[in-house]
Amino acid sequence: MWQGGRNRVAPPWRQPNPGERASRMTDLALVDAYWRAANYLSAGQIYLLDNPLLTEPLTPEHIKPRLLGHWGTTPGLNFLYAHLNRAIRERDVEVLFVTGPGHGGPALLANTWLEGSYSENYPDVPRDEEGMRRLFRQFSFPGGVPSHVAPEVPGSIHEGGELGYSLAHAFGAAFDNPDLLVACVIGDGEAETGPLAASWHGNKFLDPARDGVVLPILHLNGYKIANPAVLARIPHEELDALLRGYGYAPHYVEGADPAAMHARMAEVLDGVLDEVRRIKESGDGERPRWPMIVLRSPKGWTGPSEVDGVPIEGTWRAHQVPLAGVRDNPEHLRQLETWLRSYRPQELFDDHGRPKPELLALAPSGTRRMGSTPHANGGLLLRELRLPSVAAHSVEVTKHGTTTSEPTRVLGRLLRDVMTLNADEKNFRLFGPDETASNRLDAVYEATAKQWQAERLPTDEHLEPNGRVVEVLSEHLCQGFLEGYLLTGRHGLFNCYEAFIHIVDSMFNQHAKWLGTSRKLPWRRSVASLNYLLSSHVWRQDHNGFSHQDPGFIDHVMNKKAEVVRVYLPPDTNTLLSVADHCLRSRDYVNVVVSGKNLTPDWLGPQEAALHCARGAGTWEWAGTADGEPDVVLACAGDAPTLEVMAAAALLREHLPELRVRVVNVVDLMRLQPETEHPHGMPDREFDALFTPDRPVIFAYHGYPWLIHRLTYRRANHVNLHVRGYKEEGTTTTPFDMLVLNDMDRYRLVIDVIDRVPGLGVRAAGLRQLMQDQRTRHHTWIREHGEDLPEVRDWAWPY
Amino acid sequence: MWQGGRNRVAPPWRQPNPGERASRMTDLALVDAYWRAANYLSAGQIYLLDNPLLTEPLTPEHIKPRLLGHWGTTPGLNFLYAHLNRAIRERDVEVLFVTGPGHGGPALLANTWLEGSYSENYPDVPRDEEGMRRLFRQFSFPGGVPSHVAPEVPGSIHEGGELGYSLAHAFGAAFDNPDLLVACVIGDGEAETGPLAASWHGNKFLDPARDGVVLPILHLNGYKIANPAVLARIPHEELDALLRGYGYAPHYVEGADPAAMHARMAEVLDGVLDEVRRIKESGDGERPRWPMIVLRSPKGWTGPSEVDGVPIEGTWRAHQVPLAGVRDNPEHLRQLETWLRSYRPQELFDDHGRPKPELLALAPSGTRRMGSTPHANGGLLLRELRLPSVAAHSVEVTKHGTTTSEPTRVLGRLLRDVMTLNADEKNFRLFGPDETASNRLDAVYEATAKQWQAERLPTDEHLEPNGRVVEVLSEHLCQGFLEGYLLTGRHGLFNCYEAFIHIVDSMFNQHAKWLGTSRKLPWRRSVASLNYLLSSHVWRQDHNGFSHQDPGFIDHVMNKKAEVVRVYLPPDTNTLLSVADHCLRSRDYVNVVVSGKNLTPDWLGPQEAALHCARGAGTWEWAGTADGEPDVVLACAGDAPTLEVMAAAALLREHLPELRVRVVNVVDLMRLQPETEHPHGMPDREFDALFTPDRPVIFAYHGYPWLIHRLTYRRANHVNLHVRGYKEEGTTTTPFDMLVLNDMDRYRLVIDVIDRVPGLGVRAAGLRQLMQDQRTRHHTWIREHGEDLPEVRDWAWPY
Repeated sequence: MWQGGRNRVAPPWRQPNPGERASRMTDLALVDAYWRAANYLSAGQIYLLDNPLLTEPLTPEHIKPRLLGHWGTTPGLNFLYAHLNRAIRERDVEVLFVTGPGHGGPALLANTWLEGSYSENYPDVPRDEEGMRRLFRQFSFPGGVPSHVAPEVPGSIHEGGELGYSLAHAFGAAFDNPDLLVACVIGDGEAETGPLAASWHGNKFLDPARDGVVLPILHLNGYKIANPAVLARIPHEELDALLRGYGYAPHYVEGADPAAMHARMAEVLDGVLDEVRRIKESGDGERPRWPMIVLRSPKGWTGPSEVDGVPIEGTWRAHQVPLAGVRDNPEHLRQLETWLRSYRPQELFDDHGRPKPELLALAPSGTRRMGSTPHANGGLLLRELRLPSVAAHSVEVTKHGTTTSEPTRVLGRLLRDVMTLNADEKNFRLFGPDETASNRLDAVYEATAKQWQAERLPTDEHLEPNGRVVEVLSEHLCQGFLEGYLLTGRHGLFNCYEAFIHIVDSMFNQHAKWLGTSRKLPWRRSVASLNYLLSSHVWRQDHNGFSHQDPGFIDHVMNKKAEVVRVYLPPDTNTLLSVADHCLRSRDYVNVVVSGKNLTPDWLGPQEAALHCARGAGTWEWAGTADGEPDVVLACAGDAPTLEVMAAAALLREHLPELRVRVVNVVDLMRLQPETEHPHGMPDREFDALFTPDRPVIFAYHGYPWLIHRLTYRRANHVNLHVRGYKEEGTTTTPFDMLVLNDMDRYRLVIDVIDRVPGLGVRAAGLRQLMQDQRTRHHTWIREHGEDLPEVRDWAWPY
Repeated sequence: MWQGGRNRVAPPWRQPNPGERASRMTDLALVDAYWRAANYLSAGQIYLLDNPLLTEPLTPEHIKPRLLGHWGTTPGLNFLYAHLNRAIRERDVEVLFVTGPGHGGPALLANTWLEGSYSENYPDVPRDEEGMRRLFRQFSFPGGVPSHVAPEVPGSIHEGGELGYSLAHAFGAAFDNPDLLVACVIGDGEAETGPLAASWHGNKFLDPARDGVVLPILHLNGYKIANPAVLARIPHEELDALLRGYGYAPHYVEGADPAAMHARMAEVLDGVLDEVRRIKESGDGERPRWPMIVLRSPKGWTGPSEVDGVPIEGTWRAHQVPLAGVRDNPEHLRQLETWLRSYRPQELFDDHGRPKPELLALAPSGTRRMGSTPHANGGLLLRELRLPSVAAHSVEVTKHGTTTSEPTRVLGRLLRDVMTLNADEKNFRLFGPDETASNRLDAVYEATAKQWQAERLPTDEHLEPNGRVVEVLSEHLCQGFLEGYLLTGRHGLFNCYEAFIHIVDSMFNQHAKWLGTSRKLPWRRSVASLNYLLSSHVWRQDHNGFSHQDPGFIDHVMNKKAEVVRVYLPPDTNTLLSVADHCLRSRDYVNVVVSGKNLTPDWLGPQEAALHCARGAGTWEWAGTADGEPDVVLACAGDAPTLEVMAAAALLREHLPELRVRVVNVVDLMRLQPETEHPHGMPDREFDALFTPDRPVIFAYHGYPWLIHRLTYRRANHVNLHVRGYKEEGTTTTPFDMLVLNDMDRYRLVIDVIDRVPGLGVRAAGLRQLMQDQRTRHHTWIREHGEDLPEVRDWAWPY
């Protein structure tokens, strides 16, 4: 028998032998029993506090006080799970189940309990009567388990609460997993969302040879919360054309009669898996027309067909709890009992509440159980990434700030080596929405190509069916693919224009919540961090303009759990390399790294950079003029602000040499917070030592200035903190004009110093006027010549 | 001749007479000339500082120092604009042009200048040689105009910088505009995004009788920035199936030879407009198969075919500036001159730089020019909304906080009346992602239905082809539709689950930027505000759980220009009504209103509510125990926090009657900011009077607590401010458990008071212990019984 996994020798998509086929009739009776069991356990979770086996007549005391949960989608999920169980057992195939309608939590809880996966992770919910009681009681119950397919559910990489991402997650899971089949159930409600609509095209990025299989199962149960679903209400020919247009060969399983539906589903699933095997074995290099399944079944299938004279089954009214007020309404209580008994629990469970042995025989065993696949607990499969030496890529810095380099271009060379070093392991990918070259990471194409399974032309460059860079003009897909890839135990990085990363704000939310919850589950193993590289940032948008200017993703990220989020603003190339190396080694975080792509002064040598990044924030003694206590602190976070602060420091040294200036640079933004708020937070003592307890601090920050206040408002010296940053001023203009428009240019920073340090006298007043004049001069020059003055463009640190 | 507009008598989709058809050959020469003129003007904008008519040989001094802009998509846009001009002139049809590839700014600037719309709005850029020089110079030039189809561009409602929203905007513009044709150009890059992929289904929400026409024009130029586009690289049959699956009848215009393309485009466009007329005239109630156009033309069409031996035209390399370094590279300069002269400018413009009269004759006149349609400057068409009396919907409050009502349910009745009062004007719509009933606004169905053009079943409720509620399970579509509707001069409201509004964070960004820029343009008239009603909020997620908990949209909104954003947190029903009334009357804002849907105490009577909302924040004297200066301030913003603060105030009054407590409620969150930061900001004097200069303030806030610190860090009493709010703790649980998990329950608030007011003595210590015990008691009870203790569930203000 084929063992699967890394060292398999047998072909992965085994054809069932004729004997197995002949036994299908028996099988289907068993599949039906399994389905009934799962349906029973699902309804039980929604309704029952006690009396789980219905050993006595149902009374109000057995009913939960608050009836919560989503019944509508659940029987369809159970149906699919049971049929997949049969196929897995027959073919010994590895299947990961992705539940698009994640609110159908009862289904997955029921099935993983049935197959034993649940109790292995939660021994306090064993597979017996007491366990069933606890399974029922805990569902949507305070102190129990949530109603969705949350991280608490074994076998899940997809919570499904916010609809739209199932198919993208499925593709991400299938990448570089040639032996894995990802069965992805898509609700017809979810199918209306944008991210899902775009995800169908994932098949243009999947290599039949190197990647696994994604089997989309569009579940048309016809309704959302309160409306019909669009795809359920278009003519068959339109739906069929649409799915074929997406590049699939759809197979339809439609109806309501269980026996007929079982027969049809088995036939279709066998046909589909045969076709998958044929595709996997053919390997002709052409993009295959992957099969998919459309399951059209009633919403709330097998539940009450009518309640109080109103139709329920097959309508939107079955979405949540089909029978309400059961505790107080004897007729509803009676109807619930009839409904529950319709599944004939006594045929399914023995007197101790254990599933009968013939039922258990349907479920696969060990890690072939969908609730126990290691792919759904990716940390089990995670291998360390082999990382190149940062030193090999560092830029040499003999004198601070006198040479320049393009930070992301150098990072591209490091990422190229990451590609090469892990080529055999096939566990690292780079994702980008058509911006990888624009963000200057194109050195990676020396080591790999962009994955592309659509048509190719001779003029194309760097497109291959099996490239390791995924470029699709959808931030949603980049994020969804990467999440699926990471949660199944691999590594990756998403590079994106800074402004447009907001497109995935809500996806980030959900992933951060997933990580936050997973960290509390002892059986969930650590996965690689989700790394964002945000470039083409707010301060350099020569080609674009106002719509491309938004540094607020950092603010958004900061609302999530401190133990999950990290934000880095490396000021130059060597610090970017150090930060990237750190992020690629980290686990269970979301790392946000913001870095420009344009020529930037090399402030720190490799060792200095490593030390500075390890500290996260520190004084650049060589840049300041204060030996001990300064008169003023010039602080900066981000590459553009650092350049301006350095230029301001140079101006002050030239014009007010007696002023003691300290220059502080912050790489790790979390350092600014109190240690009680974030694991990276600085103790007050350290903060005061760096920023002084009482001197003016002029802080030039990459993003919206108020974030710095939010992070530091508890600090002693907060009252003296003056922050400059982006304040929603901008258009298509020169880099320096952007700084002037937002009052963060070097001249403005010098003026800020003069305005805040008391007693500077008449020389300072003269300097202030000079700075004003310089601003005016630049303003005029830029508008006349269309470019920045050479003295700004070519400025280098003069000391 | 048909005059169009509101009082038209002739049919809107006039058939051209045979004589007009016969003249097509002449027309097409003219169309080609017009196209060449637009192409010339587009390239000129990217390259030329001077010598706009090429009256002398091109020298480096004529070239811009920074070469910026996107050439690739531009000739295709120009091609479409010219052909639409012909059709508009022939048929006298009203067309709004939506530029999906908004980075093709040069095209729209060129065309509006050619037709005269531009100079009418910008008299300093006249239609002559000097005007052409300025048109060229200003493009992507400091102090000039941005590179995209930004608000500065006449005829635009769509900036297009962030790709994905063109088709949703087009549908929004077409709603309730039966005589309007919205020609929506969709780039093949944009077509990969999720929002665009979902938008195709907008045709299931468009009534051929009452709404206008959306004509999607999919522009396959084959490439994005650095990659081929997916839809350009699938077989014709797949693309055709996909578009038919979306419900359209695609017509193809494919090629590169201008003459052949002109003939084909004219034929297709005439056929399409004939078909549109047939559909508009048939009115058989069936969803029509709307026609659409696929234009497959080379990227950078008519530009340099090769530069330095590398192919440019027809490849991704034509995306931005096809010829670089023109100032320094004589060969490139020569090539540029050849390219520009290939358009034969001397045939197109007279010696004064004015377009020749025959050219001008192609453009429509007056408001039929696409750059002058009032639909693109919606304020011109905006009518006041007729609003019902708030008093008629208010709930009676004889004693504060003793009755309860469901705020959004009552609001639903007000919205129902808005529907009725404006039924004739057809200028108000409600949008929601399948959540309108869940958010309890379903009273609106007494006045109108949900718009639905897909199949209907007898069991369906409230679905009609011409309903005024648009429900589609895509926040992107709701937002995009509403934006298009508002920017064309109508009114609306988007109701959404609070957590999932983050899905449109980036769309909000772009709309807020659009409004911010529009406010500075004197010729742009005010449009109705974009109103969000966020319900099913973080504190009540009994059915769902952690993934449905995120109050951070407020934080996100706060990063945009203060003059554009408003945030309201009405604590009860009457305040919600007052706020909604205010928002529906307002202009040019984004209003965010957060309100629960569950039973909530009625704190304020109608008059009190109106006064409180007008103030935005104030003391509830009747709730506190302080006559003059208080010992402590209990502040709250949001319905759940208000309830807890009131319960805490009652506990303090009972147990520590000598403590002087002031209760402050904040409805308008912007009031907390300094007046220098926001137009609604409170002066320090007023803030100090409300929150005291030196007493402890315990602030219970609806969202993430740090936002309150961000808003108040400059205030004198900030040091004494202690904020409770949501801190990312939650699951599927009871309402009170949510409060306890996040330390915002009434007992915790009392403890906060005791811990912060000095000298309370031994009685307070006893109370503190009691509160601790209560928390424990509740915690245990909830986990045992699965519901909240009746004393919490049924609590009412006792004084």
